[in-house]
Amino acid sequence: MTSLRSALFGPGSRPELLAKLARSGPDAIILDLEDAVPPDSKENARLAVTAAIPPLRTLNPTLPIYVRVNSITTSWFTDDIQCVTEHLSGIVLPKVESPETICLARSAIEERAGILVNFIAGLETVLGVVNATSIATSNGVIGCYFGAEDYVLDLGGIRTREGLEVLWARTQVAVSCRLAGIAAFDQVVTDFSSPETFVQDASIGRSLGFSGKLCIHPSQVPLAHSAFSATPAEVDRALRLIETYAKARTRGEGAINFEGQMVDEPLARQAQRIIDSV
Amino acid sequence: MTSLRSALFGPGSRPELLAKLARSGPDAIILDLEDAVPPDSKENARLAVTAAIPPLRTLNPTLPIYVRVNSITTSWFTDDIQCVTEHLSGIVLPKVESPETICLARSAIEERAGILVNFIAGLETVLGVVNATSIATSNGVIGCYFGAEDYVLDLGGIRTREGLEVLWARTQVAVSCRLAGIAAFDQVVTDFSSPETFVQDASIGRSLGFSGKLCIHPSQVPLAHSAFSATPAEVDRALRLIETYAKARTRGEGAINFEGQMVDEPLARQAQRIIDSV
Amino acid sequence: MTSLRSALFGPGSRPELLAKLARSGPDAIILDLEDAVPPDSKENARLAVTAAIPPLRTLNPTLPIYVRVNSITTSWFTDDIQCVTEHLSGIVLPKVESPETICLARSAIEERAGILVNFIAGLETVLGVVNATSIATSNGVIGCYFGAEDYVLDLGGIRTREGLEVLWARTQVAVSCRLAGIAAFDQVVTDFSSPETFVQDASIGRSLGFSGKLCIHPSQVPLAHSAFSATPAEVDRALRLIETYAKARTRGEGAINFEGQMVDEPLARQAQRIIDSV
Repeated sequence: MTSLRSALFGPGSRPELLAKLARSGPDAIILDLEDAVPPDSKENARLAVTAAIPPLRTLNPTLPIYVRVNSITTSWFTDDIQCVTEHLSGIVLPKVESPETICLARSAIEERAGILVNFIAGLETVLGVVNATSIATSNGVIGCYFGAEDYVLDLGGIRTREGLEVLWARTQVAVSCRLAGIAAFDQVVTDFSSPETFVQDASIGRSLGFSGKLCIHPSQVPLAHSAFSATPAEVDRALRLIETYAKARTRGEGAINFEGQMVDEPLARQAQRIIDSV
Repeated sequence: MTSLRSALFGPGSRPELLAKLARSGPDAIILDLEDAVPPDSKENARLAVTAAIPPLRTLNPTLPIYVRVNSITTSWFTDDIQCVTEHLSGIVLPKVESPETICLARSAIEERAGILVNFIAGLETVLGVVNATSIATSNGVIGCYFGAEDYVLDLGGIRTREGLEVLWARTQVAVSCRLAGIAAFDQVVTDFSSPETFVQDASIGRSLGFSGKLCIHPSQVPLAHSAFSATPAEVDRALRLIETYAKARTRGEGAINFEGQMVDEPLARQAQRIIDSV
Repeated sequence: MTSLRSALFGPGSRPELLAKLARSGPDAIILDLEDAVPPDSKENARLAVTAAIPPLRTLNPTLPIYVRVNSITTSWFTDDIQCVTEHLSGIVLPKVESPETICLARSAIEERAGILVNFIAGLETVLGVVNATSIATSNGVIGCYFGAEDYVLDLGGIRTREGLEVLWARTQVAVSCRLAGIAAFDQVVTDFSSPETFVQDASIGRSLGFSGKLCIHPSQVPLAHSAFSATPAEVDRALRLIETYAKARTRGEGAINFEGQMVDEPLARQAQRIIDSV
């Protein structure tokens, strides 16, 4: 999977929004049948999502398109997976709590739709986070996201601006995705009226090892792309560092003083990674 | 167990304090034979605790009353458990490091007192925190507390005002209690002369998922009750949110703009939880 | 192992620096064949390190002297371990990811050099940190260090001044070393031009339970010794506390009001530990 800096949600019950979902240029889109759709509207949402996928695919031939179904523990799941077609890139499965859930969902979809789908697994309960590594390394899982709101609800805690209450859980999801070698989507920023909040939160997410961010508003997409890319200043510094380091190596030195910082192999590789990312 | 926002300690060696222990209205009281009692006074403390329990029970028929015994690894434990009577709600067992400790303590008490007691387990060593989930899910454990001072002593670290040194351990205890579905008591605030410190620390504890706080002074009890309850502003906001969300659902919308924030199912449930708690 | 507050690295490819490595009075020195030595210079570095060890040992008969070899997964490892002699205190093995690595390295060195060496294991990848406890408790491991730069590179994250991206990993390393009862070396501070940065970072490391710090510049050695020792103010307070606590115990009290703080057994022991450390 190439780097997915943004995955933009669209509510399944809003056909007019689904049709426009790719316009802000997200790296992936997710048509939502779960939390954004009230119980009474699940059936209508399924119809809207099913109708929306073919034109979205035609207009965006290479865009990763996902549907988020309801949790396998709900009565909606069985009907939701009827939406699976070969136009989809995969399924976003929320509130996954064990590898068994992935197996069951995969079998159910194979049976119904005759397709072996890929999954992005939602880790958004205490148990799901505790089992993050075994879920992330399950067959068919190509990414995970951390769902902070659901996690804190399940934990019985309180969401704060500082976010200490999710630091461990967020770290576990990033670490588990790294061990599995898959994409890691950082938590939603619900406060979509504040770009500053998003940028700050995305910056922390990037430092923790996430590869991108779930977005719930088109305005967040460019912010995510910028947050999960190297800044010009970072690239400039990396280029200077690599040049200085290369010269030192020809003198037999592998630990150098670069602008007051000791630079050796890992820092040189971090700089190279930044250069390679642009 | 109903919500226990405060559990107030009284030193076993101070009979005059034990008698007054329920006056500040704590959700539970703990008569301490362990850290608050010096070695030379253990025997006197046992007598004082044994004498204090019946009148406390008579005056407070429904109050959870616990005795904290010394660790099962000490020579005092065997005598301490003679204090167990049917008037007690259970035993607080400090420095638990494995589920085996719970089994052994339970058997010993059943043998001596003929009663199967419930335990609140103290997780306050590195090993105890590492084994938190298996301890919290042991038979008979109805709550755990995190003991920051003992934990940091065992770790060989230093206690700081910021508390980064206990963030992981504190998180593990809250998470393990959530997995077990039991009460989670947050760390003591030793600085009882500063209400601000207590309120700030309790606020973090609540955000991390703790259900209440250990108190070492009667003045901390009302602070704990306030800290582990929803504020009027939180309740007001929750009521507005639920009303707006309910209206939107009748229009088939499940993700709405509420005062600049995207609100969907998990946030609506968090709001409902706040309303239900008052 | 007595307390090692500092372990100073010297680049294997800089013989003039190796010769002076003990001058700043570090508690241990590490002659580096790994990250501080570029690939083309590995062979020369081995010769320089081999030549440097005997005079360093003669001049500093009791100083712990270590060589950091290249990772067992590299082609350099087999040649590196030829540097092992009875003059060495042990080997620093970087990027250890499992107990198996320790076994393999130990066998390889025993076969080549006929010596059973002790190891300081570098935990500096995601997998290494996840397996920290099993590595730290492996036979022959007498210490571990946390390598923040390599860890974050492996994680795919970004190093920040605040360091939230390493808090969990750093905590795991300290906790694992405590469970194993071995030395724990905190992360390098690469910014050697800023004593403030070092002091601040070392203070956090000490609070998290580390026993000392890796140093990459002689100027960091006295800073580490100071940071990992009790301050005069800490010692003064500890002496006052112990005196007050002892008096209270003769009155049968085990939980006292000491300068506005409730002090009982764990806090008294923390104070005693501070007094014992000077």
